[in-house]
Amino acid sequence: MIKKLLIANRGEIAVRIIRACREMGIESVAVFSEADREALHVQLADEAYCIGPILSKDSYLNVTNIISVAKLTGCEAIHPGYGFLAENADFAELCRECNITFVGPSPEAITKMGTKDIARETMREAGVPIVPGSTGIINDIDEALELVKEIQYPVIIKATAGGGGKGIRVAKNEQELIKGISITQQEALTAFGNPGVYIEKYIEDFRHVEIQILADTYGNTIHLGERDCSIQRRLQKLLEETPSPALDGEIRTEMGNAAVKAAKAVDYSGAGTVEFIYDYRNRKYYFMEMNTRIQVEHPVTELVTGIDLIKEQIRVASGEKLSVNQQEVTFTGWAIECRINAENPEKNFMPSAGKINMYLPPGGFGVRIDSAAYPGYTIPPYYDSMIAKVITYGSSREEAISRMKRALSEFVIEGVHTTIPFHLKLLEHDAFVEGQFNTKFLELHDVMKSS
Amino acid sequence: MIKKLLIANRGEIAVRIIRACREMGIESVAVFSEADREALHVQLADEAYCIGPILSKDSYLNVTNIISVAKLTGCEAIHPGYGFLAENADFAELCRECNITFVGPSPEAITKMGTKDIARETMREAGVPIVPGSTGIINDIDEALELVKEIQYPVIIKATAGGGGKGIRVAKNEQELIKGISITQQEALTAFGNPGVYIEKYIEDFRHVEIQILADTYGNTIHLGERDCSIQRRLQKLLEETPSPALDGEIRTEMGNAAVKAAKAVDYSGAGTVEFIYDYRNRKYYFMEMNTRIQVEHPVTELVTGIDLIKEQIRVASGEKLSVNQQEVTFTGWAIECRINAENPEKNFMPSAGKINMYLPPGGFGVRIDSAAYPGYTIPPYYDSMIAKVITYGSSREEAISRMKRALSEFVIEGVHTTIPFHLKLLEHDAFVEGQFNTKFLELHDVMKSS
Repeated sequence: MIKKLLIANRGEIAVRIIRACREMGIESVAVFSEADREALHVQLADEAYCIGPILSKDSYLNVTNIISVAKLTGCEAIHPGYGFLAENADFAELCRECNITFVGPSPEAITKMGTKDIARETMREAGVPIVPGSTGIINDIDEALELVKEIQYPVIIKATAGGGGKGIRVAKNEQELIKGISITQQEALTAFGNPGVYIEKYIEDFRHVEIQILADTYGNTIHLGERDCSIQRRLQKLLEETPSPALDGEIRTEMGNAAVKAAKAVDYSGAGTVEFIYDYRNRKYYFMEMNTRIQVEHPVTELVTGIDLIKEQIRVASGEKLSVNQQEVTFTGWAIECRINAENPEKNFMPSAGKINMYLPPGGFGVRIDSAAYPGYTIPPYYDSMIAKVITYGSSREEAISRMKRALSEFVIEGVHTTIPFHLKLLEHDAFVEGQFNTKFLELHDVMKSS
Repeated sequence: MIKKLLIANRGEIAVRIIRACREMGIESVAVFSEADREALHVQLADEAYCIGPILSKDSYLNVTNIISVAKLTGCEAIHPGYGFLAENADFAELCRECNITFVGPSPEAITKMGTKDIARETMREAGVPIVPGSTGIINDIDEALELVKEIQYPVIIKATAGGGGKGIRVAKNEQELIKGISITQQEALTAFGNPGVYIEKYIEDFRHVEIQILADTYGNTIHLGERDCSIQRRLQKLLEETPSPALDGEIRTEMGNAAVKAAKAVDYSGAGTVEFIYDYRNRKYYFMEMNTRIQVEHPVTELVTGIDLIKEQIRVASGEKLSVNQQEVTFTGWAIECRINAENPEKNFMPSAGKINMYLPPGGFGVRIDSAAYPGYTIPPYYDSMIAKVITYGSSREEAISRMKRALSEFVIEGVHTTIPFHLKLLEHDAFVEGQFNTKFLELHDVMKSS
């Protein structure tokens, strides 16, 4: 078992990992930027070292300094959390070269899943449903026109090297297709240095449903059910829940098996998430992408399965087997997570950094708080705006929702604006309460103005 | 369903009940003494009213004022919490006369279980194992001597009206017996106005194991498994857990069934706890008493069953059926509760009231906090010293313990002494870790001096 672990991250996920280490008897080493000297993860870890100035590229992405701290403090492993270096295959490779265990999958698995057209082809070969579209890169317009005859408009043009909403364009007719391919190729060349694009059928109305995967290095790959993350604002998830109100048992089993297939196709190990487009009108699901890391919304899965995902990651990285097999995984109740961001939902979610004067998180039955905030903490404006995750558990969806409303209504955060008022409105919205929503929900409904 | 509820209590249990009300859409009315104007339960309730001066007898036991507030605010029901009026049959009777629903069993059930010799006889008739001893009150010394021939020394002499460790005396031989009966009778007459005493076999080494009961008014009575509360200091429970490390499946089932029998014998309704003396050396269990109310340690049962006990109480009081039947109750994982008191464990647990300057409860997976504390809160010296309950859940006892140590180690409470250092020592103690302890544990081990 790993004895000492460096956490190459900050905020609540760093705190989450330090907590798992403490419970496992593993020494924890935190790293921090100059802006994070007073951060909670720095206070909670056994040791903490400054790795550079404020900007992420100089600190949390400063590979040399991070590896140096790991080496100098005798850490055998590095946990990257999410974001920053978590899906950086070069970093995983560097860890391997430096004889440090990267808590995550192999660099090869990261690369395969991180390159969109390769991931798509790998899934096709593995028999995982993918959105109908081109096989690999589109070489010329004629090929594209031929393909669209088969899959029909609307289609979506995607840069293979794209990401974060960039290098992506919808085409509803031949004119838009021809123009779109050309523009996307040029943009992609400029932005990513790679002009390759591919084409997929554009599914307008879908739910974002993802499957949590766990795999060890002994060939055991299991899934821990789904999470519905359809409540998004500009591709940012705001609320996640499990189970999904949209799935029935049959589809759930199919998607779980497909996700296991996807992970096995890249010899995956550790925790990962296979994201699907769920075309609920036609009861069809398609591979979207695989996130080769722990996700922000992992706690909802922990609450309904009782399995500690961070501990499983560390066990697998230590060369142990998974602590459970597929038959032992049970699902009980319902869990919902609300991401509390330091943003003003009344002013278009404008970031609201500053000092938290008063802070009292809610407690009681079925309420979990994952946060790095504390009374007197000053939120630096340089990083992610998420300051807390409130996760509630209930025996039913109705109970999980009423508990979330109760918890949010008693959460005291003074000094900065937060998205709590937004969530309280959302949780009262009819369409949400009825479970009738897709990823366009927040485009279609002005939640803050709903009564 | 009850629409508006008065909570006749303070501290964490008042907060607990207000939270359940909010989740159920029930309006909550708090009451408070002059010392509790700034208390959290006052802040969280929908309405709050002062019911009298500092002393409990003038406020939290001020029946007239409490009933008046309930009537004036249109409350249909009163939840007594634990302590104060929770086991006061006269109060339950008065509520009935005032046409207010008392959230608890009938006055008759409270009286039957609250009178020790009646409870003992009721259990005997119902076939629930009781400690071998006298049938009813001891009338003269000869009767006592005859009985002891059968049950053997040591025996314990108990005043039928006694309680809280008063009116109780152990006898190891004939001389102590004769003298003891006489002294206990006189003491009981003076203290309780009732000289009646009875005799039981004295069981020296036992574990305190109790069974949680739920019953509705339709004849459904179920049990939710056991709690082991053997870690006590001067009869005060300090740490509770479920399941008990001392029970096997057979004994567990037997005790569960016996507890259901006990509840049915008094037509019990609502939540209650049947406490047993568990003579683990001989694998025998005996009825100790039934607490006809919710208990401090109820959260451990909630964490392993997923059932909200306060909500069930309110449902039953509203005339609804229990939400589950016995077959639907499942037990998953392990839960431990540590009571955090404002006391100095280094100075013989001397109370440590005062202002909490800094307060940050622990969070993360498997950690539940039930507390009425907040940053800047001044703990009044007049009431119970318990300021928080930390309850952890784990897939195993080992995980629940390691999580508790982690949670307690990051709990920030500045300004007053707390029992956190005591619990951290206890959780490291070999006998505790091995589950090998009885109610004498804290007499036998000076936990604060253990390494």
